[in-house]
Amino acid sequence: MAQLRRDPITGRWIIVDLENPKGPGDFDIEVNQKKGGTCPFCYGSEHMTPPEIDAFRTPGTARNTPGWFTRVVPNKFPALQIEGNLDRLGVGIYDRTNGVGAHEVIIETPHHHKELNDLSPEEVLHVLLAYRNRSIDLKGDKRFKYLMIFKNYGRSAGASLEHPHSQLIALPFVPKRVTEELKGAERYFEYRDRCGYCDMVHQEMEDKERVVCQNEDFIAFAPFVSRFPFECMLLPKEHASDFSQIEERKLLELAKLLKDLLSRLKEALRDPAYNLLLHTSPVENIYDISYHWHMEMMPRLTQVMGFEWGTGFYINPTSPEDAARYLRGDGPKNTSS
Amino acid sequence: MAQLRRDPITGRWIIVDLENPKGPGDFDIEVNQKKGGTCPFCYGSEHMTPPEIDAFRTPGTARNTPGWFTRVVPNKFPALQIEGNLDRLGVGIYDRTNGVGAHEVIIETPHHHKELNDLSPEEVLHVLLAYRNRSIDLKGDKRFKYLMIFKNYGRSAGASLEHPHSQLIALPFVPKRVTEELKGAERYFEYRDRCGYCDMVHQEMEDKERVVCQNEDFIAFAPFVSRFPFECMLLPKEHASDFSQIEERKLLELAKLLKDLLSRLKEALRDPAYNLLLHTSPVENIYDISYHWHMEMMPRLTQVMGFEWGTGFYINPTSPEDAARYLRGDGPKNTSS
Repeated sequence: MAQLRRDPITGRWIIVDLENPKGPGDFDIEVNQKKGGTCPFCYGSEHMTPPEIDAFRTPGTARNTPGWFTRVVPNKFPALQIEGNLDRLGVGIYDRTNGVGAHEVIIETPHHHKELNDLSPEEVLHVLLAYRNRSIDLKGDKRFKYLMIFKNYGRSAGASLEHPHSQLIALPFVPKRVTEELKGAERYFEYRDRCGYCDMVHQEMEDKERVVCQNEDFIAFAPFVSRFPFECMLLPKEHASDFSQIEERKLLELAKLLKDLLSRLKEALRDPAYNLLLHTSPVENIYDISYHWHMEMMPRLTQVMGFEWGTGFYINPTSPEDAARYLRGDGPKNTSS
Repeated sequence: MAQLRRDPITGRWIIVDLENPKGPGDFDIEVNQKKGGTCPFCYGSEHMTPPEIDAFRTPGTARNTPGWFTRVVPNKFPALQIEGNLDRLGVGIYDRTNGVGAHEVIIETPHHHKELNDLSPEEVLHVLLAYRNRSIDLKGDKRFKYLMIFKNYGRSAGASLEHPHSQLIALPFVPKRVTEELKGAERYFEYRDRCGYCDMVHQEMEDKERVVCQNEDFIAFAPFVSRFPFECMLLPKEHASDFSQIEERKLLELAKLLKDLLSRLKEALRDPAYNLLLHTSPVENIYDISYHWHMEMMPRLTQVMGFEWGTGFYINPTSPEDAARYLRGDGPKNTSS
């Protein structure tokens, strides 16, 4: 059983894995090692994963056999476990609780060598539908307060398997960084009586210089406050706090824009590792008017240094305006201040 | 001129480098490349750095020539610049200000191939004295609100030069992550009428299982809430909020314990990359009773994944109790819950 721990000073929570603890010899300090063996996410390896939770399939094909387009399975090495209750207790000045939660893997496609940007919009739609449907399902479990969907692409972004996949973690509380956003957005709303993200969308559409791509329903831009080079934000133009309530027609538009954004990234930066995150409202959505769901896309181009860790203050060597230009294909422009 | 930017929602600040902007071709996506050329931090290369600000030297040797033990110079490629005023202005819904600050490099030793743990305690003392003396000096500049001292060791920790060095950045405001600690520590104090870090020291000395090493004045332990495998915290046993007020006798004890801790790290983990951070009170120290300066040491053994970025919620595969055992040299123990 994993253990959750809370820092009495910062309020930060962590998960400690007590079941598969790593020793000094267990770390891959070397990088770019070739892996051998069979891929557990390819057709014909369905028995290598835990039994599937959900899948989009060719009609007539059986569960846990080939014939699927997108397949959802429990993570074989979950950070949190689905069974059990939350038992909170004090340990001296510290607090801890059991590691109860869900940790699922969304296998995006049977094609080992295709990435999201290589798929058709309809294929990407299956992935997004899986995100949505799993969210709706897990919201029924009252132990879960927050659902985090994310994708790590490439080893330096934390991916341990090459085969295209996303992950979903259901947490027994709303995590710190999300709370910061929720509270910050709430303060913004209280002050201006408007959603801060809606304001951002309007300003970016007006300024244009940080916009990467858009369609009628969605926009992707390099945020004014980008922590990392080529970081992008993708969000609905119309206010919406809860991703799981999105309708299928809009999901297809999202699929198109996401494919476009990732293709631009691959083109401009020679297929970099990246993290993709979905930030949506918590299960108990008391932030409907002030929060606005969004995706964050962060290519892993630089090492995060001690300074960033120590301060929460990031040094970004590429202006978002330049990043957007590169991603639009306009090329760089001189930006002396 | 760099530009500082503030996110209207999270309150997060960033620095955008507009002067040396990087394009897609500027990133080292490949790792472990050998570097050629002369080291600018070795004896005889003193002309390759900006003129020295401070140094400990053999008596009779001239500034900017060999003969120094520890040498402080301005960073040749500073994240912030020393000249100018803070001009804050709004850009639509966003805020920004100039990148005014200081960015110095502490060259720890003339020996290119020796690291902090290889130096004698007296040599480490020179480094810590440089930390302290530069802090005292920069506090005189009223534009600076926070001084962050840190060390990146190894490429994957963000070090761009091999030669042993630390860095100091003086900031025109107190950064977010430090503010979180300050405020959290203040709340802890208000609630219990005790310093939270003092409480932690007492509990760790009593529990013993997370203690790595200690002497009369300082203790190093794996925090109960370690974000990363083998993360360690080093702090004075006696309450002190401001590192720059430390006396030289205690600095020597700190030098000994820091050398000990880093030697254990090197021994247990085969010389990993790490980040070392000094968290001290802000220049305007209104937190004297509730804050407690400390060092954080974080080996870079794992990739920080999308999930961590998205939640501020870290998954740590090594329990602090195991980490402490390995670093003490006791070996692992079964820790089933």
